[in-house]
Amino acid sequence: MDRIVYDLYGRDERLRFSPYCWRVHLSMAHKGLAYRTEPWRFQQKEKLAFADHDKVPVLVDGEKVVTDSFEIMRYLDATYAEAPLLGDGLACQRALLFKLFVERSVSPALLRIVVMDLLAAIHPDDRDYFRRTREAAIGMRLEELHDPVQGREQLKKALVPVNALLEQSPFLDGQAPAGTDYLLFGSFMWAHVVSREVLVDDATPVARWFEKMLAVHDGMAGRAPTVRDV
Amino acid sequence: MDRIVYDLYGRDERLRFSPYCWRVHLSMAHKGLAYRTEPWRFQQKEKLAFADHDKVPVLVDGEKVVTDSFEIMRYLDATYAEAPLLGDGLACQRALLFKLFVERSVSPALLRIVVMDLLAAIHPDDRDYFRRTREAAIGMRLEELHDPVQGREQLKKALVPVNALLEQSPFLDGQAPAGTDYLLFGSFMWAHVVSREVLVDDATPVARWFEKMLAVHDGMAGRAPTVRDV
Repeated sequence: MDRIVYDLYGRDERLRFSPYCWRVHLSMAHKGLAYRTEPWRFQQKEKLAFADHDKVPVLVDGEKVVTDSFEIMRYLDATYAEAPLLGDGLACQRALLFKLFVERSVSPALLRIVVMDLLAAIHPDDRDYFRRTREAAIGMRLEELHDPVQGREQLKKALVPVNALLEQSPFLDGQAPAGTDYLLFGSFMWAHVVSREVLVDDATPVARWFEKMLAVHDGMAGRAPTVRDV
Repeated sequence: MDRIVYDLYGRDERLRFSPYCWRVHLSMAHKGLAYRTEPWRFQQKEKLAFADHDKVPVLVDGEKVVTDSFEIMRYLDATYAEAPLLGDGLACQRALLFKLFVERSVSPALLRIVVMDLLAAIHPDDRDYFRRTREAAIGMRLEELHDPVQGREQLKKALVPVNALLEQSPFLDGQAPAGTDYLLFGSFMWAHVVSREVLVDDATPVARWFEKMLAVHDGMAGRAPTVRDV
């Protein structure tokens, strides 16, 4: 059966940095599912018309087409029950809250640290599009948002409870990684692929967790090319 | 069977404001368990010697004695399986992360808003004890910590993901309240019982959620006396 994840790429086709796509890559590995990626750029909207959607990730699983990273994780749990990602009921609802925490509290702090590096990692043909859409969304120039020192301070505050949990637990979801680990990892991997900036102090639990996350599932994420390589 | 929750009280025996005890009150109601409270003050350590512990809440459930609010919630799930509070596996682990979010990101912001009112709500015989222990823990005078404007700003930032979830879900745990609702509610109720300060903007989802939480379980929390009453 053909399994495809449509995956954002940047100035080099090997640079894959979408936080939402990284959620899905790790989730596919968690389920032990083989797949190939289809490289995609921001403005290739027609290429996703079959999915009635304009963003990645898009998962094609045989006859089935699923959009949105969280919906893809839900779909994977519903279709491949072994090794839950989000789980059911209370577990899934709490993963949804954590997803919002990642998107509203963690990613904005990361963006302040890496935004100019992110722009440089994007395909040259997409940079104007990226700048225009993002500046409209945040209401300021990317150069004004850019503030690594403030971004790190904001990130450190947001991560206080995450660091507290990782003091007592090897992964966010317990003894092994699962859905909430992939939700947070996606955002860290996004920043890591596009930028050499220090995100968090090496001595913090979340820094050690990120290293472990690069190694899980046969080092899938750790092997991915970053701006250090290409 | 005798069921007792040892419960902190303040300058009036009817003022019950411990955030950890409020978690337990709502959890007992969630399980439909009748109980009585035993009023307790900070320095009545000998009164808890039977539990080999020095803080409330302490639950006495017949022959069983359980300390620590989260452990009590776990115990209630293990003993009274109907209507899970924390749930199992991923659900419980994610509730633990949310507990740390409440304790490390939400409660410190609330404390900056209400700390002087809290001091005034404490029993006169306990105020020196409270000041001494808290000032040692936070490394500053309570008067320096007190900053309702900054506290509200800090609280608003911390609650961004909570408000986003409550835009799409009536309670944190879904269609009905459960463990994570009680974890957050405990801290809001603590501030609400001791202070008239505005905590969050009335128009925010979390403000509407707090009103709903005062009404659940036959208005158990909404009936509790606050500094508005005594």
